[in-house]
Amino acid sequence: MLSEFDLIKHYFAPSRAAAQPAHVALGIGDDCALLAPTPGMQLAISSDMLVEDRHFFAGEDAQRLGHKSLAVNLSDLAAMGARPLGFTLALALPAADPAWLAGFSQGLFALADAHGCALIGGDTTKGPLNICITVFGETAPGRALRRDAARVGDDIWISGTLGDARLALAGYRGETALSAAEQQAAAQRMHLPTPRVALGRALADGGLAHAAIDISDGLAGDLGHILERSGVGATLDVDALPAGPVLATRAPALRRAWTAAGGDDYELCFTAPAAARAAILAAGAASATAVTRVGRIEAAPGLRLADAAGAPLDLRLAGFDHFK
Amino acid sequence: MLSEFDLIKHYFAPSRAAAQPAHVALGIGDDCALLAPTPGMQLAISSDMLVEDRHFFAGEDAQRLGHKSLAVNLSDLAAMGARPLGFTLALALPAADPAWLAGFSQGLFALADAHGCALIGGDTTKGPLNICITVFGETAPGRALRRDAARVGDDIWISGTLGDARLALAGYRGETALSAAEQQAAAQRMHLPTPRVALGRALADGGLAHAAIDISDGLAGDLGHILERSGVGATLDVDALPAGPVLATRAPALRRAWTAAGGDDYELCFTAPAAARAAILAAGAASATAVTRVGRIEAAPGLRLADAAGAPLDLRLAGFDHFK
Repeated sequence: MLSEFDLIKHYFAPSRAAAQPAHVALGIGDDCALLAPTPGMQLAISSDMLVEDRHFFAGEDAQRLGHKSLAVNLSDLAAMGARPLGFTLALALPAADPAWLAGFSQGLFALADAHGCALIGGDTTKGPLNICITVFGETAPGRALRRDAARVGDDIWISGTLGDARLALAGYRGETALSAAEQQAAAQRMHLPTPRVALGRALADGGLAHAAIDISDGLAGDLGHILERSGVGATLDVDALPAGPVLATRAPALRRAWTAAGGDDYELCFTAPAAARAAILAAGAASATAVTRVGRIEAAPGLRLADAAGAPLDLRLAGFDHFK
Repeated sequence: MLSEFDLIKHYFAPSRAAAQPAHVALGIGDDCALLAPTPGMQLAISSDMLVEDRHFFAGEDAQRLGHKSLAVNLSDLAAMGARPLGFTLALALPAADPAWLAGFSQGLFALADAHGCALIGGDTTKGPLNICITVFGETAPGRALRRDAARVGDDIWISGTLGDARLALAGYRGETALSAAEQQAAAQRMHLPTPRVALGRALADGGLAHAAIDISDGLAGDLGHILERSGVGATLDVDALPAGPVLATRAPALRRAWTAAGGDDYELCFTAPAAARAAILAAGAASATAVTRVGRIEAAPGLRLADAAGAPLDLRLAGFDHFK
């Protein structure tokens, strides 16, 4: 059995030191890491905790889990429009399993390296599997995409596509019949979400968007947070919501339900003035990310759902609540 | 049952907003918090994860646990000499128990407020009890007390006293006979450690100390990290180690073993040039923290233990390893 210190050194420290970016003044191995943000910039910080049987299945592939654990955190930076700098990893493991650690660290670092996001510290302990990542980014003062900044008249936009992660879950649970190829395609979206970092940064740096949130608990619920904090309402054109490629082949009722309130999408929902439309499409193209206009912010409180013809839809939707 | 959002709002968000210090540009409630460090300062960052039956007993008093969860993190800032700014809290709970949450948040915020350290974000989820805190402080470039900065000829110093936390554990386990009053006094040290933030800041800001570490896994092992990273050795005067008030009444063998390698002390071990002795004693007095000289840094690698007469001691000591 590897000792705790050997384990940390072997999988999380070596070979990483070389890749240490300039903003990391001191990395793993001291009481604290030291981060040197660009002078005048603010730090964007987010923590996510992933628990077995809650956020992922027991026995989940370690490499995919390494990717997803960091991806959900980078998605929070994307939703603020922040540039990733680094992250800490706290890990409770039932045992120090070298095969699991090799896979997990591989998935984790592949995504971290792609975003120039350095592992700067953390903690490991024995315990029920639990992965807690805290991520750090930087953003210019006044530029961050906040939830409370939506304005009446704004367009509502969505990045990428929605609902395939929820469809994959339904497939695993046997709630929906999926072919092996469909299950595999949808499962990619569930296990390997793509944080929309480049798009988020373009929206913030260019001053293109007002408010943003990342869609983790379902669009309707997450958009609801923007509405509540901004003191506004909205109408969502449910039939305009971009369904994932597998969900797109399903019946309209399912497509509507799981694009509007699927969960685990990790796409951005953002609001922006109509004057920014062309620039937003260009930002989407520049970051190779589809962007779709799906509704508008209105003064009347509440979230209204409409079909393609503008007629009201009465769907029962709810955001995901970890304690319900 | 409270929903996740109600739970967060009720115990962790309200009334805290008023106390938000100026360096918190945006607190709880968005995808990320925004921290505005003092221009030119570096950020000191540390994460600790506390797991039931590993770092605390099942059924541990929630208020004490709230204190300790933050205290062990503040202790890491103290060991760098950093000024606390804020922290994130990620919490996995088997259930949303209002009494537990009330106690936990009370213990947590009492300590946070005493250090001007704001809760700026986090995560809650259902799962086996797990508490992951990431803490942020700031320190002037080049001033942080690093593990790799000890120099040959430095004195080795200890804050406070050592060993009573380990004695309390022995009492709980029935390894040692303790009176009820002794158990209670020693247990204070185990459950309610005092992070030495003021002393650490004085040592860093005044340029008094070279290297520092906080003693969490036992002095010998933690000092060993300083020696290894600094490429030096040391002799420790074991009989000079300041024992906690309960351990001080025990036989020399036990006193030596548990001051030198007890664990859960959360005192500072630091090294400093002899020229700084008077200033260090003054910094200790100014921060109401005892400071004791207990050895010296030497060129010869390895840690040597000596008794009061300077004769070598052969104690079997080991740092705590979570996977052994």
